[in-house]
Amino acid sequence: MQNSVKSLLLFSGGLDSTVAAYDLRSRDQEVLALSILYGQRHRKEVESSEKIAAHLGMRHQIINLDPLQICFKGNSQTDPNFEVPEGHYAEESMKLTVVPNRNMIFLSVGIALALSENCESVAYAAHGGDHTIYPDCRPEFVEAMQKAAQLCDWKKVNLVAPFLQMTKADIVQRGLELDVPFQMTWSCYKGLEKHCGKCGTCVERREAFAEANVPDPTSYMN
Amino acid sequence: MQNSVKSLLLFSGGLDSTVAAYDLRSRDQEVLALSILYGQRHRKEVESSEKIAAHLGMRHQIINLDPLQICFKGNSQTDPNFEVPEGHYAEESMKLTVVPNRNMIFLSVGIALALSENCESVAYAAHGGDHTIYPDCRPEFVEAMQKAAQLCDWKKVNLVAPFLQMTKADIVQRGLELDVPFQMTWSCYKGLEKHCGKCGTCVERREAFAEANVPDPTSYMN
Repeated sequence: MQNSVKSLLLFSGGLDSTVAAYDLRSRDQEVLALSILYGQRHRKEVESSEKIAAHLGMRHQIINLDPLQICFKGNSQTDPNFEVPEGHYAEESMKLTVVPNRNMIFLSVGIALALSENCESVAYAAHGGDHTIYPDCRPEFVEAMQKAAQLCDWKKVNLVAPFLQMTKADIVQRGLELDVPFQMTWSCYKGLEKHCGKCGTCVERREAFAEANVPDPTSYMN
Repeated sequence: MQNSVKSLLLFSGGLDSTVAAYDLRSRDQEVLALSILYGQRHRKEVESSEKIAAHLGMRHQIINLDPLQICFKGNSQTDPNFEVPEGHYAEESMKLTVVPNRNMIFLSVGIALALSENCESVAYAAHGGDHTIYPDCRPEFVEAMQKAAQLCDWKKVNLVAPFLQMTKADIVQRGLELDVPFQMTWSCYKGLEKHCGKCGTCVERREAFAEANVPDPTSYMN
């Protein structure tokens, strides 16, 4: 029997990181999924993450860092003074959804846990469509963090972003191949009973299914 | 009147970051000091940080991220299963005091708060003596993080480590010039009533005062 490679995955319970979990496991990797509470508007994603991890029989660590909220002013994801904008990611208003430096914080916590758990790599599911709006999903950011990950400890941890050059439609396509239960994943920024269908990530999710020509099992409010 | 530059400082309440606070303020910088609880063994440092910030009239933010403790296994600073080793930093046993990837986490949280508070830079007080034992105090690590800090957001934050090429004796010397109340700072890893005088950082602190030829006002247990 082969020794399986152990990977830590930043796991939000959204579509991208869920496909990433299935993808890593399809490559015989042992996955430790990490979800981080950071003072976000709702708990729907993390509830999804728990259900999916249980469904997959995947090890799952949730860390509550809600006091981080104080670092994240002026955005719609953590600051109750701002409404979640509706529309397409291409619109200027979507900049309100950027949580400054969230990914560096998540990656650094992931690297610490990976070092402690002897994982060889830390994976996160940034994809091509994220680049325009989220600076901390760009390839040059990943490259800089990869360098830092090699230097932060005497042991080396590898940073991987398997979907960095893929579109969200590609990810849906890959999810279909892997039998991902898309209906268990949560994308919507609003965190109501169902996906709102109107916020940036709902619009992107709908488009991705349409573009991939895959039936969208999501129940939207409109 | 000049507009003063606003800097965020990672501030533990130890000797190095306290001299850094005085140093930044002597250069007319407005300092926002950040202290992070991460599940460490004791609260003595953070108590010092509060007293020093009050003494200086310096803005001070404490964030409680104690649940991070789960990421930090197998070291004497956060894991109650390990004793704080006594002796000199040069000794192999001192590796037990390394908290894996702590500095990347601290810097990433500092960068997030700096972005939110419109600080131009994030400073931390890593020094030359740290390099041998702490991988995340090395110049090459600082350089990698500086690059990541430039890319993590649409705004740029500058990472500075003003003491990177200085010894701890140099820092004591600089502190003397700046009238730093050394007796208010806390270094000891053990967190007893007084500095133990025997752990790695106490030994280093004593040596630094001796080497700088500055009277050491610290009250040690032995």
